[in-house]
Amino acid sequence: MAGAATDHPLLGREIVGRIGALGAISETPENLTRIFLSPQHRAAAELLLSWMESAGMRAHLDAIGNVCGRYEGDRPGLPCLMLGSHYDTVRDAGKWDGPLGLVTAISCVADLNRRGRRLPFAIEVVGFADEEGVRFASTLLGSRAIAGTFDEAALGSRDEAGITMHQALSQFGLDPAHIGAAARARRELHGYVELHIEQGPVLEGLNLPVGVVTAISGATRLAVRLVGMAGHAGTVPMALRRDALAGAAECIVEIEEFCRTDPDGLVGTVGYIHAMPGATNVIPGQVSFTIDIRAAADAPRKLAVTDIVRQIETIAKRRKLTLQVDVTHENRTVPCAPWLKRQVAEAVAAEGYRVFELPSGAGHDGMAMIDIADVAMVFVRCRGGISHNPAEHVEEADADAGARVLLRLIENFLPRTGEAKAS
Amino acid sequence: MAGAATDHPLLGREIVGRIGALGAISETPENLTRIFLSPQHRAAAELLLSWMESAGMRAHLDAIGNVCGRYEGDRPGLPCLMLGSHYDTVRDAGKWDGPLGLVTAISCVADLNRRGRRLPFAIEVVGFADEEGVRFASTLLGSRAIAGTFDEAALGSRDEAGITMHQALSQFGLDPAHIGAAARARRELHGYVELHIEQGPVLEGLNLPVGVVTAISGATRLAVRLVGMAGHAGTVPMALRRDALAGAAECIVEIEEFCRTDPDGLVGTVGYIHAMPGATNVIPGQVSFTIDIRAAADAPRKLAVTDIVRQIETIAKRRKLTLQVDVTHENRTVPCAPWLKRQVAEAVAAEGYRVFELPSGAGHDGMAMIDIADVAMVFVRCRGGISHNPAEHVEEADADAGARVLLRLIENFLPRTGEAKAS
Repeated sequence: MAGAATDHPLLGREIVGRIGALGAISETPENLTRIFLSPQHRAAAELLLSWMESAGMRAHLDAIGNVCGRYEGDRPGLPCLMLGSHYDTVRDAGKWDGPLGLVTAISCVADLNRRGRRLPFAIEVVGFADEEGVRFASTLLGSRAIAGTFDEAALGSRDEAGITMHQALSQFGLDPAHIGAAARARRELHGYVELHIEQGPVLEGLNLPVGVVTAISGATRLAVRLVGMAGHAGTVPMALRRDALAGAAECIVEIEEFCRTDPDGLVGTVGYIHAMPGATNVIPGQVSFTIDIRAAADAPRKLAVTDIVRQIETIAKRRKLTLQVDVTHENRTVPCAPWLKRQVAEAVAAEGYRVFELPSGAGHDGMAMIDIADVAMVFVRCRGGISHNPAEHVEEADADAGARVLLRLIENFLPRTGEAKAS
Repeated sequence: MAGAATDHPLLGREIVGRIGALGAISETPENLTRIFLSPQHRAAAELLLSWMESAGMRAHLDAIGNVCGRYEGDRPGLPCLMLGSHYDTVRDAGKWDGPLGLVTAISCVADLNRRGRRLPFAIEVVGFADEEGVRFASTLLGSRAIAGTFDEAALGSRDEAGITMHQALSQFGLDPAHIGAAARARRELHGYVELHIEQGPVLEGLNLPVGVVTAISGATRLAVRLVGMAGHAGTVPMALRRDALAGAAECIVEIEEFCRTDPDGLVGTVGYIHAMPGATNVIPGQVSFTIDIRAAADAPRKLAVTDIVRQIETIAKRRKLTLQVDVTHENRTVPCAPWLKRQVAEAVAAEGYRVFELPSGAGHDGMAMIDIADVAMVFVRCRGGISHNPAEHVEEADADAGARVLLRLIENFLPRTGEAKAS
């Protein structure tokens, strides 16, 4: 089955070329940085709109700065299968995180258009203006506007230069009062499908170019503070110490062990730690650290958080350390819709690849889109699992594999109602 | 025997009063800070010289800024029993660290002088000008000058304001070319005895006002760097991680366990840790931390360092982390001379206290004095073991107990040669 795509031209080359062109639109030439409502946002939007139009789509910039293209079905005004990803970047980013899904979707539509193929539903491609949330405090601004869940209060938030989002939108030529007009209704969408680089090493480890996403993992972030007693590193015998860092170290080892032995693929990370006073010759009296716990379902994540907090409490109590634990962030899990995920899996299989399902540990626009549509995702392998880094890389063959899967999905797509009828 | 000291007035009150007077001589009124070659150094020296003179001593400031007082024996020019401690402080210091030993020694001599008591040896009291090493990079400047081991290269070192030690000495009115003249010869000293606050919680835990020091512990400091692979906290499964912080945490737990179960009172501290990049949602790719290992003898400390480094190597290897370990500092152990320590113990017992021996985990001027004299130390209990902190505190009764022990030691003191004759 691996040769199944020989009936249409390879899309990988076009995709890689366009990724390069988009990647050149950056705040600084050395480090790819393309921030919400910047001149580079504008330049990238113009390029994307032109590609959409060449692909036979009607294209426009919406009120938040998303690029939106529509390819009509076999008659005008049909509900759409929505495809998309974001085209903003983190600072010092890779070229693929976001743009791959967007460019691939445009290339797929262009291929249909070249062949004059119309389907019994429309296709819409959206390039979300801000998923990373680099400029202002909030993330998913583009997809939230489309989902109708954009928080108007965010318009007052300021970037590092003190410019409010309201001012930045106006300067960009958008009317903040019209953001509501970007919102779409559930009845307009059959579903939302996003192709994205994995940003992890799992597919590479399995030697698979693509994977089927089961869910966008929910996340709980905790801030932990342990307070013991600072003391002289030479004068306090081990038995009399209340060393906050030794306590934190025990917690970190326990958290790792708990997640490592979890059968459901839980991941837990302590990414930040600060020990005070932080001198070589002083026993740390106070330590702060963070915990990030993710799982592909909410119930096991919440259970894990409870168990981990209980373990930390036990450690703190035994060591006579004062403990404070705060939940600083909580994201529900966004499960991919089984009926839509099955169609993705069928497309993967039809292209001759082993169907491998995995959760997305990273957040994506689907987290906002779930409010107006069923969601599915296709992952494409990236080298070393590296992302948010200039070393981020996707092989042309894998970009092509992703495009073939997406195209196959589109051409074979059965809206849920249609599917219900067929069964 | 607890009432044995009733034949002379209580010295504790005088000592506490003088500690208060010295503690008021500070760079800022809120936080006690008295730095080498500052105006406060000058003011404190003048006060100390006046107390020495009232105690019947001939007193002078030497070429490095030490205050030196001499109380002749039953004939002039006899070798001395040298007593002392330092009168510089850390920033935001307590009043007792250093001054207690110095003020107690002066009060003891004053007591002898009031009674017209002359001994078959001289007594010298030295207030060392810089033990803490706050102003310039090097510590023990005062005692090194007396021991003849002052490093002339230190004169070129600069304080935070860019002033060299050479300039600071000149501005203070001292001649840097004459520092050599502060050096004393071994034949001039019978020994060096220092009374100091414990700076640890051991005596308090045992409800003892004083303790007999066995040695000034040697210390080895290590800088450890672990390098793994940074990654997304959501997308890298636990089994594929090379988390440098989880590795460091395992090392810290092992170091604590190793020292905790050591039968010889080894202490080990990780006081500083830094995880990079240090973001909540990123697996740390690199961690640096320090290790401070101290023991009352060199051989077990060196053995422990070797064992701990081997354990860290094992952890790093198993976790596929790159390891770098550097020794950043090493201090030999300074054992207290058995003959002199025995006389301290006899004085403690004679004052009715249980003789309890403990090492000094903190550094003291004896580390320099060992080069020209046998050394012994008396520890006085301090509240909560707290030091280098405004909360540092000694009860008047304990200051008095320390003074009685020191006075008893002086009055019963047998120089080593004399002791050898007696045995």
